[in-house]
Amino acid sequence: MSVIYNRVALIGLGLIAGSMALAMRRAGLAGEIVGTARSADTRKVAAEIGLVDRVTDTAVEAVKGADLVVLAVPVGAMGDVAAEIGPHLAPGATVTDVGSVKRAVIDAVAPHIPEGVHFIPAHPLAGTEHSGPRSGFAELFDNRWCLVVPVEGTDTAATERLEALWQGMGANVDVMDADHHDLVLAVTSHVPHLIAYTMVGVADDLRRVTDSEVIKYSAAGFRDFTRIAASDPTMWRDVFLNNKEATLEILGRFTEELFALQRAIRTGEGDHLFDYFTRTRAIRRGIIQAGQDTDAPDFGRGVKKKEA
Amino acid sequence: MSVIYNRVALIGLGLIAGSMALAMRRAGLAGEIVGTARSADTRKVAAEIGLVDRVTDTAVEAVKGADLVVLAVPVGAMGDVAAEIGPHLAPGATVTDVGSVKRAVIDAVAPHIPEGVHFIPAHPLAGTEHSGPRSGFAELFDNRWCLVVPVEGTDTAATERLEALWQGMGANVDVMDADHHDLVLAVTSHVPHLIAYTMVGVADDLRRVTDSEVIKYSAAGFRDFTRIAASDPTMWRDVFLNNKEATLEILGRFTEELFALQRAIRTGEGDHLFDYFTRTRAIRRGIIQAGQDTDAPDFGRGVKKKEA
Repeated sequence: MSVIYNRVALIGLGLIAGSMALAMRRAGLAGEIVGTARSADTRKVAAEIGLVDRVTDTAVEAVKGADLVVLAVPVGAMGDVAAEIGPHLAPGATVTDVGSVKRAVIDAVAPHIPEGVHFIPAHPLAGTEHSGPRSGFAELFDNRWCLVVPVEGTDTAATERLEALWQGMGANVDVMDADHHDLVLAVTSHVPHLIAYTMVGVADDLRRVTDSEVIKYSAAGFRDFTRIAASDPTMWRDVFLNNKEATLEILGRFTEELFALQRAIRTGEGDHLFDYFTRTRAIRRGIIQAGQDTDAPDFGRGVKKKEA
Repeated sequence: MSVIYNRVALIGLGLIAGSMALAMRRAGLAGEIVGTARSADTRKVAAEIGLVDRVTDTAVEAVKGADLVVLAVPVGAMGDVAAEIGPHLAPGATVTDVGSVKRAVIDAVAPHIPEGVHFIPAHPLAGTEHSGPRSGFAELFDNRWCLVVPVEGTDTAATERLEALWQGMGANVDVMDADHHDLVLAVTSHVPHLIAYTMVGVADDLRRVTDSEVIKYSAAGFRDFTRIAASDPTMWRDVFLNNKEATLEILGRFTEELFALQRAIRTGEGDHLFDYFTRTRAIRRGIIQAGQDTDAPDFGRGVKKKEA
């Protein structure tokens, strides 16, 4: 593949930005990759491991002469970063972000983007429970979706160029409206994370069951919750504070359904439970068929294949 | 390893019984493995693939001369099976089960166990979302826990023999009281499954977000819920109906915590969210350290290791 941007500036050097740097390098998509982070420790580690070509101390230095600037900081920090770099952006440059919420990020960032600079919000739907400059890997976006969320007046050519970058990093691209994005993500990501955090918190709180019991016996289902409840706390705090409306709407639906199942358990309505549990299997089959998860038993976790 | 039981009868030929057959074979723990299932289809498949040494049409035939009988049917069916086989059990034999609930199974099964036969309830904490006679594999119990739940007057030698079988199949063994088992499992398994089923049901119900969107964009967290919500509906219906008290207690704690987080989102209490999300990371670390899950990014799911 050929170079799509001559100089890419990554603001923030966590899981997503680090994986972007490695994925861009894998396919030779960027002339130079510059990176910065607010934390001096993060900058030091990134420089040591050669995560990017050049680490700068400030975001203002990083964006100088960049034709692509990627905001890869927690959603709540996007507005401040945009305000800081706005006056220093090169004419004709593209600014994008990787935030998990889109309406709030657009409202916070757009006012700081000068005339002649393209702002094209985006959100790659990929991640792990790990964070920090050492957590990235080049394959993170392979066969995952990146949602591009154009704002009013977004330039078509600039959008296509950003889409080509994401495809070059292995992702499939879809275009979506900001409000619909925030609702879809509330269902597929935000509320699932919140209830996983809640379940793990309940287990940790319960005096009659010890933490060591919870840990030892987690293979019975609980460990899947702990994985997503181990994600970056700052990132997730900001997601919930900035996607309040959709999160609360889906939470309302969730508790309504949960109470109906709870009542079925209390009153012994086995058929209601059976029908509900049968219906949810079909969604799983769809996900396997769409290549968004593996059908391997136990994900191949602890499974050593020995012949009998 | 040497033979621990001369003839093992598996009543039910699903994921757990099938994996037991393969794990016993792997280590040569049983002289003969006999199996049966209520469904003629299941029996046919089990015979075709040679899952056990001999498939019988009825449970009564299966238990003849067996020194170990394993009840591996849904929790709600345990009592009926016990009543059926009770009069045909060999003197000195051991009857065990693999049910996910222990108090209700003990109450249903114990009355049917004749004098001179040992009843030793047990529960291997292992599974996948797959079910049926083709779903078993020999490694399922490797490094997983099996909880043995002695009833009053259980014979020590018979218990040690059953424990040796589980260890021979790769599991670690702990002994636990029935009521405490049911509470621990409500936390680590039953309530997590119920809320995963609920979340998947909510996604499926929502008219403003299509199923195809939910499926395509599931990598953002949702897919982990669909895996556990794809488990066998009959098994799970029975679990909830038979572990009602502990499930409802933990559900009550869960909704209490969820409402507190929901209020923090509504009122914008970022610190409360951040602190909560930070605390839950420690549990995850414990699970990795205890070898009950892998730390691989994304479980190594879709991650193809290519060099840059």
